[in-house]
Amino acid sequence: MTPAQLRTILDEVREGRTDTAQAYDQLREAFRDQPFEDLGFAKVDHHRSMRQGFAEVILGLGKTPSQIATIAAGIVGRGAPVLVTRADEPAWRAVRELVPEAEYHPVARAITVKRDVPQGVGTIALCSAGTSDIPVAEEAAVTAELMGNTVDRMYDVGIAGIHRILKHRDRLEAARVVIVVAGMEGALPSVVAGMVGVPVIAVPTSIGYGASFGGVAALLGMLNSCANGVSVVNIDNGYGAGCIASMINHL
Amino acid sequence: MTPAQLRTILDEVREGRTDTAQAYDQLREAFRDQPFEDLGFAKVDHHRSMRQGFAEVILGLGKTPSQIATIAAGIVGRGAPVLVTRADEPAWRAVRELVPEAEYHPVARAITVKRDVPQGVGTIALCSAGTSDIPVAEEAAVTAELMGNTVDRMYDVGIAGIHRILKHRDRLEAARVVIVVAGMEGALPSVVAGMVGVPVIAVPTSIGYGASFGGVAALLGMLNSCANGVSVVNIDNGYGAGCIASMINHL
Amino acid sequence: MTPAQLRTILDEVREGRTDTAQAYDQLREAFRDQPFEDLGFAKVDHHRSMRQGFAEVILGLGKTPSQIATIAAGIVGRGAPVLVTRADEPAWRAVRELVPEAEYHPVARAITVKRDVPQGVGTIALCSAGTSDIPVAEEAAVTAELMGNTVDRMYDVGIAGIHRILKHRDRLEAARVVIVVAGMEGALPSVVAGMVGVPVIAVPTSIGYGASFGGVAALLGMLNSCANGVSVVNIDNGYGAGCIASMINHL
Amino acid sequence: MTPAQLRTILDEVREGRTDTAQAYDQLREAFRDQPFEDLGFAKVDHHRSMRQGFAEVILGLGKTPSQIATIAAGIVGRGAPVLVTRADEPAWRAVRELVPEAEYHPVARAITVKRDVPQGVGTIALCSAGTSDIPVAEEAAVTAELMGNTVDRMYDVGIAGIHRILKHRDRLEAARVVIVVAGMEGALPSVVAGMVGVPVIAVPTSIGYGASFGGVAALLGMLNSCANGVSVVNIDNGYGAGCIASMINHL
Amino acid sequence: MTPAQLRTILDEVREGRTDTAQAYDQLREAFRDQPFEDLGFAKVDHHRSMRQGFAEVILGLGKTPSQIATIAAGIVGRGAPVLVTRADEPAWRAVRELVPEAEYHPVARAITVKRDVPQGVGTIALCSAGTSDIPVAEEAAVTAELMGNTVDRMYDVGIAGIHRILKHRDRLEAARVVIVVAGMEGALPSVVAGMVGVPVIAVPTSIGYGASFGGVAALLGMLNSCANGVSVVNIDNGYGAGCIASMINHL
Amino acid sequence: MTPAQLRTILDEVREGRTDTAQAYDQLREAFRDQPFEDLGFAKVDHHRSMRQGFAEVILGLGKTPSQIATIAAGIVGRGAPVLVTRADEPAWRAVRELVPEAEYHPVARAITVKRDVPQGVGTIALCSAGTSDIPVAEEAAVTAELMGNTVDRMYDVGIAGIHRILKHRDRLEAARVVIVVAGMEGALPSVVAGMVGVPVIAVPTSIGYGASFGGVAALLGMLNSCANGVSVVNIDNGYGAGCIASMINHL
Amino acid sequence: MTPAQLRTILDEVREGRTDTAQAYDQLREAFRDQPFEDLGFAKVDHHRSMRQGFAEVILGLGKTPSQIATIAAGIVGRGAPVLVTRADEPAWRAVRELVPEAEYHPVARAITVKRDVPQGVGTIALCSAGTSDIPVAEEAAVTAELMGNTVDRMYDVGIAGIHRILKHRDRLEAARVVIVVAGMEGALPSVVAGMVGVPVIAVPTSIGYGASFGGVAALLGMLNSCANGVSVVNIDNGYGAGCIASMINHL
Amino acid sequence: MTPAQLRTILDEVREGRTDTAQAYDQLREAFRDQPFEDLGFAKVDHHRSMRQGFAEVILGLGKTPSQIATIAAGIVGRGAPVLVTRADEPAWRAVRELVPEAEYHPVARAITVKRDVPQGVGTIALCSAGTSDIPVAEEAAVTAELMGNTVDRMYDVGIAGIHRILKHRDRLEAARVVIVVAGMEGALPSVVAGMVGVPVIAVPTSIGYGASFGGVAALLGMLNSCANGVSVVNIDNGYGAGCIASMINHL
Repeated sequence: MTPAQLRTILDEVREGRTDTAQAYDQLREAFRDQPFEDLGFAKVDHHRSMRQGFAEVILGLGKTPSQIATIAAGIVGRGAPVLVTRADEPAWRAVRELVPEAEYHPVARAITVKRDVPQGVGTIALCSAGTSDIPVAEEAAVTAELMGNTVDRMYDVGIAGIHRILKHRDRLEAARVVIVVAGMEGALPSVVAGMVGVPVIAVPTSIGYGASFGGVAALLGMLNSCANGVSVVNIDNGYGAGCIASMINHL
Repeated sequence: MTPAQLRTILDEVREGRTDTAQAYDQLREAFRDQPFEDLGFAKVDHHRSMRQGFAEVILGLGKTPSQIATIAAGIVGRGAPVLVTRADEPAWRAVRELVPEAEYHPVARAITVKRDVPQGVGTIALCSAGTSDIPVAEEAAVTAELMGNTVDRMYDVGIAGIHRILKHRDRLEAARVVIVVAGMEGALPSVVAGMVGVPVIAVPTSIGYGASFGGVAALLGMLNSCANGVSVVNIDNGYGAGCIASMINHL
Repeated sequence: MTPAQLRTILDEVREGRTDTAQAYDQLREAFRDQPFEDLGFAKVDHHRSMRQGFAEVILGLGKTPSQIATIAAGIVGRGAPVLVTRADEPAWRAVRELVPEAEYHPVARAITVKRDVPQGVGTIALCSAGTSDIPVAEEAAVTAELMGNTVDRMYDVGIAGIHRILKHRDRLEAARVVIVVAGMEGALPSVVAGMVGVPVIAVPTSIGYGASFGGVAALLGMLNSCANGVSVVNIDNGYGAGCIASMINHL
Repeated sequence: MTPAQLRTILDEVREGRTDTAQAYDQLREAFRDQPFEDLGFAKVDHHRSMRQGFAEVILGLGKTPSQIATIAAGIVGRGAPVLVTRADEPAWRAVRELVPEAEYHPVARAITVKRDVPQGVGTIALCSAGTSDIPVAEEAAVTAELMGNTVDRMYDVGIAGIHRILKHRDRLEAARVVIVVAGMEGALPSVVAGMVGVPVIAVPTSIGYGASFGGVAALLGMLNSCANGVSVVNIDNGYGAGCIASMINHL
Repeated sequence: MTPAQLRTILDEVREGRTDTAQAYDQLREAFRDQPFEDLGFAKVDHHRSMRQGFAEVILGLGKTPSQIATIAAGIVGRGAPVLVTRADEPAWRAVRELVPEAEYHPVARAITVKRDVPQGVGTIALCSAGTSDIPVAEEAAVTAELMGNTVDRMYDVGIAGIHRILKHRDRLEAARVVIVVAGMEGALPSVVAGMVGVPVIAVPTSIGYGASFGGVAALLGMLNSCANGVSVVNIDNGYGAGCIASMINHL
Repeated sequence: MTPAQLRTILDEVREGRTDTAQAYDQLREAFRDQPFEDLGFAKVDHHRSMRQGFAEVILGLGKTPSQIATIAAGIVGRGAPVLVTRADEPAWRAVRELVPEAEYHPVARAITVKRDVPQGVGTIALCSAGTSDIPVAEEAAVTAELMGNTVDRMYDVGIAGIHRILKHRDRLEAARVVIVVAGMEGALPSVVAGMVGVPVIAVPTSIGYGASFGGVAALLGMLNSCANGVSVVNIDNGYGAGCIASMINHL
Repeated sequence: MTPAQLRTILDEVREGRTDTAQAYDQLREAFRDQPFEDLGFAKVDHHRSMRQGFAEVILGLGKTPSQIATIAAGIVGRGAPVLVTRADEPAWRAVRELVPEAEYHPVARAITVKRDVPQGVGTIALCSAGTSDIPVAEEAAVTAELMGNTVDRMYDVGIAGIHRILKHRDRLEAARVVIVVAGMEGALPSVVAGMVGVPVIAVPTSIGYGASFGGVAALLGMLNSCANGVSVVNIDNGYGAGCIASMINHL
Repeated sequence: MTPAQLRTILDEVREGRTDTAQAYDQLREAFRDQPFEDLGFAKVDHHRSMRQGFAEVILGLGKTPSQIATIAAGIVGRGAPVLVTRADEPAWRAVRELVPEAEYHPVARAITVKRDVPQGVGTIALCSAGTSDIPVAEEAAVTAELMGNTVDRMYDVGIAGIHRILKHRDRLEAARVVIVVAGMEGALPSVVAGMVGVPVIAVPTSIGYGASFGGVAALLGMLNSCANGVSVVNIDNGYGAGCIASMINHL
């Protein structure tokens, strides 16, 4: 039921062209059956997009290149920014064809189309423990930047050489929220959270071998952090961390 | 090395009473050995307390009542607020003896001593799925309130009766950050995160039986949330969620 | 918004006492905010109770005896049947005081208050593999009987003596749905499902030791059943199985 | 021993052509050795096929294309419907050669040969949480349709946008049984079960990454459902769910 | 149907007192419905008892003392030997009252009543790795001895002092089957199996702490044995090992 | 130290050419250092081969075709039978070149060279639950046959159609030991063990999907068997089962 | 065979009283059967005690007080030092009665009797992350001290306040080997190993809750350490770490 | 801040060109912000390299050949030895181009450039259980040799033929530290640790199948070792073991 339809019913009731019982039934149906999305006067789906500047993110995993390209073109058509995560080369080629202004971020495996979005209040600090964690970190960075944030990257600052992260104390303290990406034992978030007073979003990565169990060791390390302020997202979920950090940075 | 000591060395060098080589060695030592805590001019440990209004939290688990009471009395002596989590009745009686102004929150199993702290910007919404999740939720609430936040509690709004949470849309949308506490399948955070545009801190609880595996089912459900904005803390970690929410609410 | 309120608004619009814009806003609010429960003309919560004859089940686990008794008395006051699961002796004594007509089923650890409910179409067959599985089986039986079903119990018919279950072929074939309760290797549901053409609800129990892992071995056995028609509920969830079987039997 | 053979023995005894001891031995052997399948007067194997209209389902996994084709041709030769699950392109080409009337369902990865079977009583509602869950959902749909059921598909109605499933309330309420297919946190079945009064068959899928552990997170979420009426089948077991739903729908 | 009944039917048919159709129906019923146990001429349940000299074993776990005593008295009444495993002191006192000749084996936590049974062919060697594994080993020993076997115990011969087991080479080589009981890393069966040419039954115990996970480490060690001839039973299942070893020793 | 060397030392002592102290030192060294293998008069390694008729088995997994062929040729050169397990086509071609009399068993993925070995006492019954379990079953069969046993194969007798295994009661009862191979829920060994009085060697297979976890469900099912006489080997370890069964059958 | 016996045989051979064949047989037997322990001239069991100054350690877990006391008294009788780990108060009272000079370490739950043992070369540094880890750390300390080592304790230096461990750089660098005890995320060993150039023995503790899984999170964190030089012992195995550190410190 | 910069500040203060307050601020900054690495007068990063003779190890996993070659060339340019682990053929070809003196170790999958480094005190014994464990063992050997150690290899000495390891007693006793590499049940370290009085570094390998779970069975076996002196590294972590053994051997 669109706002126009609702207004029409009310007008018809007022003008006596529809009697009360009939209008009652029509509206009751709308109460019970209508998805909020189709109400017209309140596109619930677009709440988030209005506030954050983009509507939808395409998880590339398990979609064909042409499916991805079609959805991306549709979003661009509505004037919204586009983010495709877990996008490989073929997906990139398919999108580029339909959306020439799209950009590809090969390390992050992400496709983006930038649009003007509300800017975040401060800076998002982004640390990664090792070089192998960079793809996940870059997914977070690309996500956060597309959503209107400034990202301060500090890579390869793992705890085995503790001075590497200590050296960045000032940059960490300058951030409004920190994303920490780490595989193996996943201990960097605890160290970072002990150095700052802002929320730390921890992203375990599947980097490691043997008893790392594809990121489980890092995940458990982060969940059991002895430091205050650490919350955790799924293994390799750089997108999720970037999105949460952006939400916090837009408060 | 205190600021005074550093100043003395510099004065002595300037006045020629200490030669450069000797001063060099003294300072080099300070660079290498001094813990930041003992620098004097920068008590790193207290960074967080200055910003958030409290110094330290006492995890009651595994401490004797008299240990807890002694630490609590010490903190009170420094004029700081006190929070003891996982505190049972004997701990409460021991603390009360040394710190008469302390309060006990039996559902949250927490002891607090309130102090003036900086107030958070907005409201923290706090949802729990079932009645059995309330102790963990209350630990989060007590923590957040002590840290200077207003908490809006919505309990027993689990997804099996989806209208229960839908009814609270306005209160959820009014919050600056949401804590969602749930056991069993742990699905409430996904539903809530789909309704709001602010960060959701998900707390799995050990509530359930059989294949809930002491909260693992809820934890996995939350980590795999299909909704944007959900980050997760350890099972039953109400304190951690309250603390992170407070950090976000103080930004 | 109750039906009466809706009707009033419409009347007022028709009569010109409320103008269209104002009515539009009121109704729009209702669309967005009202929980289905409070709509008045449609108590979603009571759908199920109308069809199945009871409103709510009390999971005794983690509730105090007086909490349980209070809720039970409330339900009885509305004229509905009562089922308390995982109820121990103290809970039973507390309920008996407030609800003298309540019955206790010690093996099933359940408290019931019977009421007239719609009767199921056929019979629910209920098999258990070993004597130790009987408490879980009885929870299913008490649940199903309270919900208006006839239950045909076949206990201690585990597969190590395969003739024991084969002997009951006729009774199994006479059932409209079968519940099979088993611990240890949890293989009985596969055998039963191979003998009948109706749905089999499998309930793993935590009976066993060592590598049974508190029912996980039985759970996995049932999920991997090579027979058609087996679906599974949580470990020790006799109530759940009884409830599903009753739903099927009322179709 | 066929009924004819049994009758012959009895006739011979009556006529004195076989003495009692010899008949006794022959029958005793039959008691001990005969598989029910070969009894003649009771083909246990065919019980199910008589009632449900099809004899056997071919699990394509781990069979060569020619093995699959041979079995399928054999079933068709007996006039029965055919269902091959987990069938890839080569299997399809091999079957098509021997059974020209066969159809291929590429999304469901299933091959079917339709036959007249008894029709189910009502409708089977089929929900999937995300687009990636559709192959498993389609396996369930193809299975149920081949077995004589009408399937009402509702795809991409996951809980992160809760209005999507709420919008389908009427269609859900119209169903006699509901299949819910979901990966990631697997929470959709709980929401659906809270909306309807009929059995819900939950199918976890291996969709997800990281801590989804190939469907374990979804599986645990479903087993721990806080809603009534949810039973669960193995991860990705669309066929199993379709089969159970059909059994229920034929009651 | 007992042999007598079958014979009667045949006689009646021969004598014309029962006509063929009626006899056919009676026998057909017997084919379909009768449990093998009740056939009379073939008590399937007693097959094993005839060969091994005892009918049934009572798993004490989860039974009340009086239940155990009643079953035990019943078995004694049939002249069979009795074995109750996992029997505590109260069970023992209850059994002793009804069956004065019963014996209690406190280390093995077993109650026995000895009877003449067929003797095994050779010796069963029984090794345990540590002193803490002895209760499980003794359960195996008591079981095997009651079933008519000679058991040669070699305790505390774990692999950390490898000479301890090497010293027993002759006794091991003299055995017809070997039971090896071990907790912690569970490596003793591999060493023993490398020294003998007969089957080795490995019993993991729940002895250990930390990453022994209640016997899982030992269980996995035994399942992955690099030596020939090792098969494994459940954690702490001394009874099972004793029973299998007895079966082998009676071949 | 060879027997000749030992004899020489003793002769030299007797003849006074070596004094006692020197001989004492030489022998003491031999006591401490000599591996049993190199003693000459006692080739520990060959104990087993003498009794069972073959020396060594080559696990093909992780070896190159030429490594496999070289080892096989060496064994053949000593006149011993050869068994290569987990051998693929290239391994087979390499072996065939060096050992023309070798045979390949493609289903079992095994290469054999037969030799005269002591024959087992009775028959080994070999059951498999499904067609997909046959490769593992055939590995067991090829192993047992090469070791001098008669194997009675009963394939596709899983418990979902329980009459299939019941029909083979006589063949099962005729066996001296039974191997049961099963994937999915792994319940067949329990049923078989309930039908016979001889040891049952259970082999879980990695057949299945989803919550079968590569054979873990079947493994747990077998370890928790409620029937007497079941012991278990590693997942897919057909060779191990064949070897143990042969040991038992040679007693 | 004792040295005296060996000498006698050689003498008899030399003197012609025993012929070569007979001596050959006697010695051959000794080669095959004698445990190294009983050789007389080489008590393998005592190798370690000779080098490290103590013979045996008593794991208190699962032993009765009187068993512990008896073993301890026996060891004291041989003049050796005593260590009982996991000893509770009753064990301590029982030991004190038989061995008055014994000492009890209540935090470490250890009983010791000191003896002169070889001293280690340098210092063992011992760090613990939190106060709750101290019992495990003290078990390591008591063990190492009894074995002749100087232990430098640094407690409560967890990584959430990284300056705490950094402040101890000099003491860490002065150590010959470092033991690091930590629960929760178990990340301290990585930080320490990055600061020193000597081996780090990491001890996970069962301290934590929820997803710490009784020490598994800490264990995995340590096994996946990104720093060089970290090896790990079992959860809560303070004794093991103390023993290994002592071995290293005695090199 | 380099030593030269520090000296300049002090000189300027002495000469009055910088006043005390300004110098104070400059030095205070250095205290807080400077990473130890950039202090100039104390390159923390090079501590280890100075003592052990090499600076950095390149983990080949997840790096491109050209990345690896560039880093290797950089290290060689500083005159340090190079170790690349997990290096495949393409990596080797890329490195060889830039660093002609590099060597490739195909079994260990390692690239090395040797340099003069301090020699270890004694010998490192290196045992592997099976032939398949050799690649991991060789990674340990190449690492240890490059770091200046003599390695005594004992391969294929698994416990199923216990005499194989017993035969090497003297070589084991001659070592200063022992590395034991084993897959499957991982029991060799316990046997070896029972034979020597020096530290044993245990390396589980992913060799095995079925319930070996990619090395988890071996890992658990080693963590639960009943012998003294065993510490464990990650699955397949030959490099880590070689590195720790070298640290111990250089003490």
